Amino acid sequence: MKNYKMTSVKNEARAELHDALGLTGAEISINCLPMGASVPFEHSHKQNEEIYAILEGAGRAVIDGECVELKAGDWLKIEPSAKRRFFAANDRAIKYICIQVKSNSLEEYTTGDAVIEQ
Amino acid sequence: MKNYKMTSVKNEARAELHDALGLTGAEISINCLPMGASVPFEHSHKQNEEIYAILEGAGRAVIDGECVELKAGDWLKIEPSAKRRFFAANDRAIKYICIQVKSNSLEEYTTGDAVIEQ
Repeated sequence: MKNYKMTSVKNEARAELHDALGLTGAEISINCLPMGASVPFEHSHKQNEEIYAILEGAGRAVIDGECVELKAGDWLKIEPSAKRRFFAANDRAIKYICIQVKSNSLEEYTTGDAVIEQ
Repeated sequence: MKNYKMTSVKNEARAELHDALGLTGAEISINCLPMGASVPFEHSHKQNEEIYAILEGAGRAVIDGECVELKAGDWLKIEPSAKRRFFAANDRAIKYICIQVKSNSLEEYTTGDAVIEQ
């Protein structure tokens, strides 16, 4: 029984990893919006915080009515209750990762959770 | 009080987002290993699963003694107990994301946790 799972993501409009990788602590999606396109609705969450990473291109998020410009290399953490909607720029596509995790679920991490092998 | 936090990651050797973004459900790092370099130790975890995304370049992971070749677009989920070590290729650097989450911490997600605004 292998202790890992692997998949490869190309340029799908949306790839979801929870089932593909057997994730138990997160759902992760990789999303591509063509230029001028947007997610067709605004949403919030009940208990999950979302972390977004912009991989390529540019666009904007509207978060609780505030417009936030986005470019490659930007990372955002959005509280569960915030109302959010993502848009590609009018002249450029955007590719981004969305990571959903349960708020306040992390206990120890990095040196607090790792076991370094000698 | 804003319901989001934002930061930007360039080509640092390692950027850690837990404190920068006030994350409560994950620690996320963005890592660059120059060609021929490796993380200098093997490690496992007590309770966190790790999810790795290869952003650029190529390299390999050794997981419980098995060598796994890595290229941009690959995603890996590694169980807490697995012993892992990451290497850049001999002729190429590698840039990757590491996401730490507590195993079995996710409850509902996507449509189960989202509230769609009308």
